[in-house]
Amino acid sequence: MAKLLDKIDSPKDLQQLSIAELKELTQEIREYIIECVSKTGGHLASNLGLVEATVAMHYVFDFKADKLLFDVGHQCYTHKILTGRKDLMKKLRTEGGITGFPNPDESPYDQFSVGHAGTAISTALGMAMGSQLQKKDDKIVAIVGDASIVNGLSFEALNNIGLVKRQMLIVLNDNSMAIDVTQGAMAKYFSKIRLSHTYEDLRKTTNAILEHVPLIGKKVEGAIERFKKTLRMAFSASQLFESLNIAYFGPVDGHDVGALVELFTTIKELDRPVILHIYTKKGKGFDPADLDPKKYHSTGPFEINGEAVNGLVGKETFTDVFSDALLEAGKKDEKVVAITAAMPDGTGVVKFREKFPNRCFDIGIAESVAVDIAAGMAKQGLKPAVCIYSTFLQRSYDQIFQEVCLQNLPVIFCIDRAGFVGSDGPTHHGTLDISFLRSLPNMTLLSPANESEVYAAMDFAIAHNGPSAIRYPKDAIWKTAESPEILRSPFELGKSVSIADNNSDITILAYGSVLKQAFDAAEILKQQNIKIDIINARFAKPLDEKIFAAVKAGKHIITVEDNSLIGGFGSGLLEECNRQKISTGKIICLGGPDRFVDVASRGVQLEETGIGKNSIADCVKKILNRS
Amino acid sequence: MAKLLDKIDSPKDLQQLSIAELKELTQEIREYIIECVSKTGGHLASNLGLVEATVAMHYVFDFKADKLLFDVGHQCYTHKILTGRKDLMKKLRTEGGITGFPNPDESPYDQFSVGHAGTAISTALGMAMGSQLQKKDDKIVAIVGDASIVNGLSFEALNNIGLVKRQMLIVLNDNSMAIDVTQGAMAKYFSKIRLSHTYEDLRKTTNAILEHVPLIGKKVEGAIERFKKTLRMAFSASQLFESLNIAYFGPVDGHDVGALVELFTTIKELDRPVILHIYTKKGKGFDPADLDPKKYHSTGPFEINGEAVNGLVGKETFTDVFSDALLEAGKKDEKVVAITAAMPDGTGVVKFREKFPNRCFDIGIAESVAVDIAAGMAKQGLKPAVCIYSTFLQRSYDQIFQEVCLQNLPVIFCIDRAGFVGSDGPTHHGTLDISFLRSLPNMTLLSPANESEVYAAMDFAIAHNGPSAIRYPKDAIWKTAESPEILRSPFELGKSVSIADNNSDITILAYGSVLKQAFDAAEILKQQNIKIDIINARFAKPLDEKIFAAVKAGKHIITVEDNSLIGGFGSGLLEECNRQKISTGKIICLGGPDRFVDVASRGVQLEETGIGKNSIADCVKKILNRS
Repeated sequence: MAKLLDKIDSPKDLQQLSIAELKELTQEIREYIIECVSKTGGHLASNLGLVEATVAMHYVFDFKADKLLFDVGHQCYTHKILTGRKDLMKKLRTEGGITGFPNPDESPYDQFSVGHAGTAISTALGMAMGSQLQKKDDKIVAIVGDASIVNGLSFEALNNIGLVKRQMLIVLNDNSMAIDVTQGAMAKYFSKIRLSHTYEDLRKTTNAILEHVPLIGKKVEGAIERFKKTLRMAFSASQLFESLNIAYFGPVDGHDVGALVELFTTIKELDRPVILHIYTKKGKGFDPADLDPKKYHSTGPFEINGEAVNGLVGKETFTDVFSDALLEAGKKDEKVVAITAAMPDGTGVVKFREKFPNRCFDIGIAESVAVDIAAGMAKQGLKPAVCIYSTFLQRSYDQIFQEVCLQNLPVIFCIDRAGFVGSDGPTHHGTLDISFLRSLPNMTLLSPANESEVYAAMDFAIAHNGPSAIRYPKDAIWKTAESPEILRSPFELGKSVSIADNNSDITILAYGSVLKQAFDAAEILKQQNIKIDIINARFAKPLDEKIFAAVKAGKHIITVEDNSLIGGFGSGLLEECNRQKISTGKIICLGGPDRFVDVASRGVQLEETGIGKNSIADCVKKILNRS
Repeated sequence: MAKLLDKIDSPKDLQQLSIAELKELTQEIREYIIECVSKTGGHLASNLGLVEATVAMHYVFDFKADKLLFDVGHQCYTHKILTGRKDLMKKLRTEGGITGFPNPDESPYDQFSVGHAGTAISTALGMAMGSQLQKKDDKIVAIVGDASIVNGLSFEALNNIGLVKRQMLIVLNDNSMAIDVTQGAMAKYFSKIRLSHTYEDLRKTTNAILEHVPLIGKKVEGAIERFKKTLRMAFSASQLFESLNIAYFGPVDGHDVGALVELFTTIKELDRPVILHIYTKKGKGFDPADLDPKKYHSTGPFEINGEAVNGLVGKETFTDVFSDALLEAGKKDEKVVAITAAMPDGTGVVKFREKFPNRCFDIGIAESVAVDIAAGMAKQGLKPAVCIYSTFLQRSYDQIFQEVCLQNLPVIFCIDRAGFVGSDGPTHHGTLDISFLRSLPNMTLLSPANESEVYAAMDFAIAHNGPSAIRYPKDAIWKTAESPEILRSPFELGKSVSIADNNSDITILAYGSVLKQAFDAAEILKQQNIKIDIINARFAKPLDEKIFAAVKAGKHIITVEDNSLIGGFGSGLLEECNRQKISTGKIICLGGPDRFVDVASRGVQLEETGIGKNSIADCVKKILNRS
């Protein structure tokens, strides 16, 4: 099989094919994606949904000169296959391979290295404005899903689209399902349109566009009005976009590659911003993904028959334990509510939602308002847990500052994917949250190191009368039974716990899950008859006074954190020691570097940045060799 | 005069008045606001526009139990007057007085301490959801301007409004002008509606609502449909909100206090989220403000005849000089473009816009997309200057991270209002930007200390091939002629300059405009025969190697910055010294504290936080006394 795909090394090769061959090719690409992702893991369902549209776009546009921008970017696999990265797909999301997101370092066909939602229309808008100003005639195409278009950033871009007086195409990829069930008014609106259209209607709409648009030519304004009136096509869909004064076409079938080629060829010539609304099916062509696209949204390696899709199979993760801890908290206190931004599975709030459907809110990919909803609820006496990945919480920085910290409201930020995230790479690392949260007055920062501490941290946060943020990584969790007894003690504001006290000259001071790396480093050292002390900081803000005492005592202190060293946990210790006039000469800070860290396994990333067990052990040995 | 207002100390007193008296009262309030603001300075035009609506709301609702939320919040003066702060209005925005924004510390009638746009609907949504869950029957009212409703945060809230199945009122205060001319599709849409309505139409709409809504009662769903069909009222306006499934009423006259009382009384009973669209006139009742509302948006003290409205009269500010520097940059390089988020005056881009209208873009109160547009433009080879206040740039944190720094694009952030801002208070201080930007890889941070350095910083940033951020305060500028000659030298990446070298044991290392405070401190000390050294850091990232040499040499180093000490400039020095194993025992960091700093003059705030000239001089003397 796969004869056609064998010959495709660039979009030029693609453009030699007939429409009939394109259809065959889409099938080959689909099989190839399934094959690759089954080995490496990755985003499957969304990529299977977008094969035809991507092939059609590359057939019609020349994306070496033209610009193709993906929103979020996890749906770019067909694009990567068509633009010279076919073989590298076998090393998808692995060290030395290619990333799972667009990446200009890999190919001139990629514009932005992205992974967050809402950026495609916004940056495409900027590119179109840039071309307009410089009188370039490159075509700009942004592809955005129905889940991302509800993001405030997308809306701000749509609201400003009138600044573009030239070609700009937005492909609205409506796959009838966001990461979870899409929330909100726009989702309902799209769904209403969807239900009112049969397959036959989609075909009719396509024909209507193809017939009428060439006649419209450059005189779009009046013609679109007439067009709509004559055809009454998709009137309900156009209403929203029309009120924002954006020309809207669709919905059309996103799996009919021949029709898409015709549509793109036609619409490409319109010299104003246009939305083309396509319907696609997540997981199309792979039965397990088709039946359960949520499961295959982002997956680890799996068997082609659909078995074993979990990357951390058999290992309980921080997310799993948090999920139970949140449920427990909800049982103990009916004021506890949970908020997620389209990630009920990823953040583990599903269990809470099953038990307390009325106290759990998924507000879609809209992290900013998620925090404000929590602020409003806290103001009304509830205890909201806002469950957002570290990297996406960056979207809520100003809301955390003003609506939460300035008011000193008891909102609990449950920050999953804090620290290095492994295969998702630089767009997804959560290595800035300590830095951006630490400078906010009233904020308390804490982090659990093992299973029992997840519960203890939640208990603390719920009892605490002010904003707090609990961070934990995408990683297997250190089980209670396998970790020191002392970790079962409750959290007290700004109190650390000592987990190894050998009266050593060297103390490792770890914050959060990297305590396990510190512990493992101590084990390595023990075998070499080196004994060290270990303190579990528990809090990054406020810091334990006891820690300063240890510094004052002249011990070597090695801080370990899964966050940027700039403004991070260690930085806080240096600041406070400086304020208290305590010498910091024997403090060594280990943590994330001042650069973006490439795709690799999380274990590799930890060692590479000096916070894996071996690196920590090496650091201790270096101190001993020096002194 | 002012007999009625004399008797009003709380909304209870207000509720004793007749409608005829309410009308008289609105006139008295208007005069009182003008009188107060003429002495203290403040937001004038928007407050004059909202007198009737605020009086009517307090007449109908009981905001001790019910909740009133202002968006941005600068339009809350009538509310403050009616809720026991009438006399304190004379100390508006001054030390020991009241703030110019809602403030729960001042009154139980205030919900959130705010100052940023887009938060009212979002937090009201959370409050309504909180009441719903707890079966409270408090009424929730959010008042939002036409300029704020376009913010992505507002949109995210509107998109999620379906989560509320109870009363929630959004008053859309359409005053036909944002801070500057409102931009974007929604603004055009509102303006189209506005133009299609005569005063007579507004009256008819009001009557139609009053007649029909009571009949609708609790069966809102179907009834609103029938209502619309029968009346065809405001069909065009309702289209947008209807597609988001939000019940919409209006537009109505926002200055007819009697009609508003009737409308609020009626609409208050609807048990679902509702938008009431009111038309108001900025600056109504004060001719100079009515004629030039932009000028009176935020004003210093003025004469009632409208003379002398500039708070820093006669003094050239950093903003003024930046305005010229941006213009110069634009002349030298046609690739330079400017972007503002509704603040062409405040950020000083007006001069650039006058000269290069095609290269200047005001994208409304939408800081997130402002940065993405810049990223897209930079990708297309332009050199965008994004001109946003420090506090509002917090809204763009994630865009700066991903769309700018991860791509290493040459976007120039021109950060006005960096540091303490004086009378606007805690919501507006720009004391976090060094902290949140410093941890972003690829970012270069610089700050000019005087007039010539503003030009030099711009020159540097435009030549620099990567992201850069230039910060400067809301303050009078240190003129070139009055400052040391060396400050005229060009900026070189990571190079500081020494402005006083007395071979002293004490060096003040200042970053940005506080160099002037350091210089003045040195003058004070000189009179006491104390000589110190002064270094102008120029860059917060990267730091000059020369600085480490000074630390290494064992000198006392006092860092001075107009930013939080947490994660700030001094923190960076401590981190880097620690990395290089340089003792930091003789470094003293002066800067913003870990708390919110109250309203006062900027000068007072600088001294209070230890970075005014006297505080710096005192710090030096303390070192000398100790050693």
